[in-house]
Amino acid sequence: MDIPTPDDIAAAARRIAPSVHRTPVMSSDALLPGRSLELKLENTQKTGSFKVRGAFETLLSGTVPEAGVVAASGGNHGAAVAHAARALGHRAKIFVPEIAGPSKIALIEETGAELEVVGGAYSNALEAAQAWEAETGAGQIHAYDAFGTLAGQGTVMAEWEDQGLEADTVLIAVGGGGLIGGALAWLDGRRKVVAVESEGTATLHTALRDGPGAEIEVSGIAANALGARKIGARGYELARRYGVESVLVSDEAIADAQRRLWRGVRQWVEPAGAAALAALSSGAYRAEPDERIAVLVCGANPAPAPF
Amino acid sequence: MDIPTPDDIAAAARRIAPSVHRTPVMSSDALLPGRSLELKLENTQKTGSFKVRGAFETLLSGTVPEAGVVAASGGNHGAAVAHAARALGHRAKIFVPEIAGPSKIALIEETGAELEVVGGAYSNALEAAQAWEAETGAGQIHAYDAFGTLAGQGTVMAEWEDQGLEADTVLIAVGGGGLIGGALAWLDGRRKVVAVESEGTATLHTALRDGPGAEIEVSGIAANALGARKIGARGYELARRYGVESVLVSDEAIADAQRRLWRGVRQWVEPAGAAALAALSSGAYRAEPDERIAVLVCGANPAPAPF
Repeated sequence: MDIPTPDDIAAAARRIAPSVHRTPVMSSDALLPGRSLELKLENTQKTGSFKVRGAFETLLSGTVPEAGVVAASGGNHGAAVAHAARALGHRAKIFVPEIAGPSKIALIEETGAELEVVGGAYSNALEAAQAWEAETGAGQIHAYDAFGTLAGQGTVMAEWEDQGLEADTVLIAVGGGGLIGGALAWLDGRRKVVAVESEGTATLHTALRDGPGAEIEVSGIAANALGARKIGARGYELARRYGVESVLVSDEAIADAQRRLWRGVRQWVEPAGAAALAALSSGAYRAEPDERIAVLVCGANPAPAPF
Repeated sequence: MDIPTPDDIAAAARRIAPSVHRTPVMSSDALLPGRSLELKLENTQKTGSFKVRGAFETLLSGTVPEAGVVAASGGNHGAAVAHAARALGHRAKIFVPEIAGPSKIALIEETGAELEVVGGAYSNALEAAQAWEAETGAGQIHAYDAFGTLAGQGTVMAEWEDQGLEADTVLIAVGGGGLIGGALAWLDGRRKVVAVESEGTATLHTALRDGPGAEIEVSGIAANALGARKIGARGYELARRYGVESVLVSDEAIADAQRRLWRGVRQWVEPAGAAALAALSSGAYRAEPDERIAVLVCGANPAPAPF
């Protein structure tokens, strides 16, 4: 299986730097009583999530067919691919499931990409995207299980370390495993990584228990962002290799973490963007008193959007 | 007139550091076509605005009477004083005008401060706060025209420079002149500062034209945050001393800048927090092509709040 090395990720970081935000970091003791947390506000990224890193890396590191690119997405990846394709002058076709919701669909439409809304969940949109790829020769940009996607998403962690990350432990939300996979590939075991999933999107948790092919029924408030039916092969391989700790959080814990992020640091994020914090605030992950914790705030596209 | 020196501001920064957020900075080319802007996200500050810096500095640098402290505020300063007083174990009494609105009133109530809503505008709340001070002996923390307030607010600019600010020119919103006064006192002429006011809160603009005693009728969407009736004496003195350029923006330009901050960097800020960007995006301030610009995003408490 082709998995990016730290050198691949460093090369990706150089390639995409002119196209993406170097997202800010801060520490705050206003999110949890008695504990200061390091945060990376990747929610301030272009199109509102880390997904744009993998999209730019895929487009900039290879040859894009005349037919352009195609992607299936719960919303954020589609917006990212559409944005990156437009910025670089390529055609983009995006398939989204109905559960993406009007806010994310509007976000993709604003980029001028060709958009098709497909009944059902993410897996149905992926089938449609694969059919489009076969028919037109467009390049498929997988939302979480491709070399370029992982290399791009891994730049989040490379950048964070360059910004002085001190944490012993980093909490990261998991959907299909692209973000955590990239982070694990970059870190190569140098820090502890905790994988956080909502109870309704527990692909990694289920795969670690039942094997890598295990599928789930997607549900809950984080479904449109974390809603893969099974964990990506690369994310699974890396999670196993580095012995990632997997924790689950309820939808209520996620909603509470969204409120904490607003009240503490005035960041309004979508459920998936607050899931990592929820692991700590709900007690699903129990940190040692002296354990230094970092929380990756990964996605900002709430519904409804304020504008 | 007692105006803080850079040494006073550096001392304030050391005093308040354990109590406030070191707010993050970032650069973005997603707010205006063809131009990268440096941003300081002071909207992520505790209680959602820079006001908490001056509040902590005032409480930490002096002796607090047994009767505690009192403040009049359009909302943000009241929340800041209430938060700082509670954190340090003092009693706080806050007078707010009706135009503060339910979101900001709720924010103050959450701190447990004694709150009184006064009919009319900020100036009416200030009269009530002065009466309370005379009656009880509580310490008045002025929202913008006091030594400690300016010293505290000046730490925003000191911190930004410590974080690597590169800009030739810094755009700052002006209400009563506490924030820009502190910034000017810190910078001592080392960078150009542009003062931005909404047309309905143009205290500095009016004073620069008609003299320092000039009063205005407050109106418009930024009224509860920028709505002093006249510019503070210290802010005026510093603006004159350093030849600040004063520009006005319309409410429409501010609303557009709020949308830009959401779409570009997913920051949801109140009108006052977007006013500085509005100067640039509306063309009210015309930057040279090679002029490096920084925008201070100073307040985050929109109405309605998302939570």
